[in-house]
Amino acid sequence: MGSHGRDEKAIQALVTRWHRAMGAADLAAVLSMISEDAVFLAPERPPIRGRTAFAQELMAVTQSSTVQSSAEIEEILVSDDLASCWATLTVATAPREGGPPTVRRGPVLSIFRKEAGGHWVLVRDANMLTSDAAELALKVDELERELMADGPGG
Amino acid sequence: MGSHGRDEKAIQALVTRWHRAMGAADLAAVLSMISEDAVFLAPERPPIRGRTAFAQELMAVTQSSTVQSSAEIEEILVSDDLASCWATLTVATAPREGGPPTVRRGPVLSIFRKEAGGHWVLVRDANMLTSDAAELALKVDELERELMADGPGG
Repeated sequence: MGSHGRDEKAIQALVTRWHRAMGAADLAAVLSMISEDAVFLAPERPPIRGRTAFAQELMAVTQSSTVQSSAEIEEILVSDDLASCWATLTVATAPREGGPPTVRRGPVLSIFRKEAGGHWVLVRDANMLTSDAAELALKVDELERELMADGPGG
Repeated sequence: MGSHGRDEKAIQALVTRWHRAMGAADLAAVLSMISEDAVFLAPERPPIRGRTAFAQELMAVTQSSTVQSSAEIEEILVSDDLASCWATLTVATAPREGGPPTVRRGPVLSIFRKEAGGHWVLVRDANMLTSDAAELALKVDELERELMADGPGG
């Protein structure tokens, strides 16, 4: 196996460990896989800059909810100490108090960096999970039907 | 300037050329900056795979609308023949028939590859522009106000 093959395997293994750690709400394990300067991008919110800021967000989520996620890796590109990984993500979030999970799905494009020790860490993450748009579209339909039902003269 | 410095400058110049070409609806120029196997990712739609598929999408958009876009580059990471570029994108789309432009804004994470000839091309693109969610949220507010105004007994 070439060095690229080894790097690909290492990144695949990291992605698997990531989702296992998320499911177990093992924050220490998750945080060990990202760089201190990691940046998390998504639509409709400011970038999350740095491991500390990410840890705070993650803590807030995992305190109120369980998170079960998985990634289907579409492709890994490696060049020296930089790699990009395109995957299709599925994330099910359920309130710890009970209630149905919210399942969101979408592509993610992640950048990994090989550190001095030879291990890879996540440095940049572009998360394109379904936003609340699908849910809002349903809500609009529902409200429009209610208004129509009210009809002229109620 | 080191080789990374030169590569960064080349990618900055490419991003500038990209937005100039989009504004001029110069499809040939846009397409010359992407690889044949380029993939375009965004929330809530399937990936656009390949230059030909992207050209079709772009043609449909530029036939009906003018597109004025710009990118504020946040960071470029280069390693050998692979680079990632994180930018904040602003895109104003206006119908050619007239009417107000729709302005969308958000981060984009792009992967560039250095080709055999030494020039860089776009190979993967994660577009996190504001989706229709913001617009839908306003619509929900509006409909809810209408329903309230109708009041009990209409």
